[in-house]
Amino acid sequence: MTPEEILELRRRHLGGSLSLSYRNPLKIVRGEGQFLFDESGRPYLDCVNNVCHVGHCHPRVVEAAQRQIGALNTNTRYLHDHIVEYASRLAGTMPDPLEVCFFVCSGSEANELALRMARTATGRRDVVVLDSAYHGNTGGMVDLSPYKFDHAGGAGKPEHVHVAPVPDTYRGPHRADDPEAAGKYADAVAGELRRAVLGGRSVAAFFAESIPGCAGQVVLPDGYLEAAFGHVREAGALCVADEVQVGFGRVGSHWWAYETQGVVPDIVTLGKPIGNGHPMGAVVTTRAIADAFDNGMEYFNTFGGNPVSCAIGLAVLDVIEEEGLRAHALNVGARFREGLAELGDRHDLVGDVRGLGLFIGVELVRDRDSLEPATEEASDVINQMRERGILLSTDGPFENVIKIKPPLVFSHEDAGRVIGELDVVLAGVPRRTS
Amino acid sequence: MTPEEILELRRRHLGGSLSLSYRNPLKIVRGEGQFLFDESGRPYLDCVNNVCHVGHCHPRVVEAAQRQIGALNTNTRYLHDHIVEYASRLAGTMPDPLEVCFFVCSGSEANELALRMARTATGRRDVVVLDSAYHGNTGGMVDLSPYKFDHAGGAGKPEHVHVAPVPDTYRGPHRADDPEAAGKYADAVAGELRRAVLGGRSVAAFFAESIPGCAGQVVLPDGYLEAAFGHVREAGALCVADEVQVGFGRVGSHWWAYETQGVVPDIVTLGKPIGNGHPMGAVVTTRAIADAFDNGMEYFNTFGGNPVSCAIGLAVLDVIEEEGLRAHALNVGARFREGLAELGDRHDLVGDVRGLGLFIGVELVRDRDSLEPATEEASDVINQMRERGILLSTDGPFENVIKIKPPLVFSHEDAGRVIGELDVVLAGVPRRTS
Repeated sequence: MTPEEILELRRRHLGGSLSLSYRNPLKIVRGEGQFLFDESGRPYLDCVNNVCHVGHCHPRVVEAAQRQIGALNTNTRYLHDHIVEYASRLAGTMPDPLEVCFFVCSGSEANELALRMARTATGRRDVVVLDSAYHGNTGGMVDLSPYKFDHAGGAGKPEHVHVAPVPDTYRGPHRADDPEAAGKYADAVAGELRRAVLGGRSVAAFFAESIPGCAGQVVLPDGYLEAAFGHVREAGALCVADEVQVGFGRVGSHWWAYETQGVVPDIVTLGKPIGNGHPMGAVVTTRAIADAFDNGMEYFNTFGGNPVSCAIGLAVLDVIEEEGLRAHALNVGARFREGLAELGDRHDLVGDVRGLGLFIGVELVRDRDSLEPATEEASDVINQMRERGILLSTDGPFENVIKIKPPLVFSHEDAGRVIGELDVVLAGVPRRTS
Repeated sequence: MTPEEILELRRRHLGGSLSLSYRNPLKIVRGEGQFLFDESGRPYLDCVNNVCHVGHCHPRVVEAAQRQIGALNTNTRYLHDHIVEYASRLAGTMPDPLEVCFFVCSGSEANELALRMARTATGRRDVVVLDSAYHGNTGGMVDLSPYKFDHAGGAGKPEHVHVAPVPDTYRGPHRADDPEAAGKYADAVAGELRRAVLGGRSVAAFFAESIPGCAGQVVLPDGYLEAAFGHVREAGALCVADEVQVGFGRVGSHWWAYETQGVVPDIVTLGKPIGNGHPMGAVVTTRAIADAFDNGMEYFNTFGGNPVSCAIGLAVLDVIEEEGLRAHALNVGARFREGLAELGDRHDLVGDVRGLGLFIGVELVRDRDSLEPATEEASDVINQMRERGILLSTDGPFENVIKIKPPLVFSHEDAGRVIGELDVVLAGVPRRTS
């Protein structure tokens, strides 16, 4: 089909709320490693798909899927090796006492389950989230997502949700030059917990992405989660780390981004990269919380934990370990961020470069003092980069943060190419004044 | 691994709320057609897996999955043939004006999306459901599921949910001998709608499975949905048909079970059989509702509608059509139900045999007048049948309904074998008195 024919059928049979990337949409027919290919065979360097985590169509993952799909795909009501092998392996990547796994079909389902668990275990209902957070597309998760409820079509903050500021030390109220910033942002969480109690409510959980993504790839200041978790636990609530975007070694130094903050959450939610594109998700928690959740109401997930999903999950863990992708992400990411930061010497649009491993944000601003967001410029940049064969996207409350989260097989050479092309594009992008 | 080793790892790394089928759990390693095989190679006739809809590991579906997994698996932000081919095909199975598809990862996600759509389109919040209904495992769907909220671990009916009686003409207040039963049950829906308004609330939607499953495989009396939908629409609410269990030709006479009632819902939700075991789901609705939902808040589903899922979905539709599985389900199901009903002549435990196509319930009772549920007997029956190599399960509020919903390739011979074995088992099952 031609792109025009596809667009016509999309208009007829798909919802208008399903958007396409880029002003000039791409028809992609093949993926391999860090590359996507259009119908003409032109390769595009994929800098943004954190789902196909170990590389598009990784042969080992493909083969594991192909083999198991031909043998058995049924639910968890029968005994099978894969689910317990996978649960053991996954639990083994997490610090004690995180040892019990629940398998679901998506990150949204994982966060939904985490919320049910936290409510059941605490007997409470409310949740503290970070501003600009996105935790999923179900009704309950839109309620926990200021990224959704505070914007077009949103109904505003529900009563049971309390929003703490994103600990953004570039743009937020407490900045990198304030050595107390982490503690002050954590105090704001304590403030929300107190306000909830004063309002006659009680908080079941604090949900936070370990590196807030939709907020603009915000790296938490050192000590933030430790202090915030302290306040949350003091208030009798549970700490939920949403690792749907950032987990599975993307940060390089650790398996899980929360580990970079030196904390152990009560519940961890997993999604996107877990199956390299296969629809799956997971929740990992403590035995105590899993037992509290086992209150007589069975949790059954039709597809979650089936032998195909678990075979794929195992293959993804194998590849991360055997190809040393954590160390690779750490090294490539560090040098990549250095090169991106150097772009700032030549292009004053580049306000901030931040990230951990291969989860990186480049914030574009019109003025380095006022931090006026360079939203239109960011859009121009990603659209021009797409024409040059490099796929990027934008995020953050002002859509002015270039989001970089490629498959982990992304190389130093790829990073060099992105920097080189960005150098050209940034020089030519038309500047706006407000 | 031995079953004991698997059980030990399940205890360590899985939640206790994840239950196994049968007193003597099975370790299943392979599936083919209507059969599952244990490690010794012993075949079990699968009479209960409506997920592996066209047969376990159907070669055509397996091949479609294997091919696409090796080529591309990415999200819907790029143009691709499969998603629009699949959306067109799926929409083509539904009556006008159902023509817009949304793709998700599970039936729970489909019902969550349907609820979000209904609320956005109507600007209202409440929902009328049927008693004993189950619509999914997310927080929002547990709220709509009396099967969950009214039982162990449940918090009872939420304020925004209104429960109408299941139109069960075997056990409910209006029975098969009442020619007005359908209208009376539909009037109860109208009653809930009125009560909601009197309570100062307003109803966004009526959710109903087109054949209520957890309520005990209850075939709706003729005219019920037409009358109920009439009341719902008069009240300005939308009609949601949950076809997660019963869709895709299982009823034989039609693609969709709601068609057997002569109605066209406003929103239809799909899951389980849609991908023959692959994690996927869908929502199909009208352009008007899809447009109302497109209110500025994007709906994005990371995995939903990816090329692998759509290739699998297309292959499932192909197999249903090319193998004539709808006609097959109609014929096999009809003769199967006749044979099951004849068991009632010899075994007074058999209180009722009902169903459409290959979605069948056999309700066991201790007394045909009092209808006292033969719960323990039903459990004995399915456990003894499992020892004889036939997989069945129970459902219904008293867990006394033997649930039969095999892969559609299930044959007349298979049905004959089930009837023969049931004849023996029913004769020997110990009887209880209350």
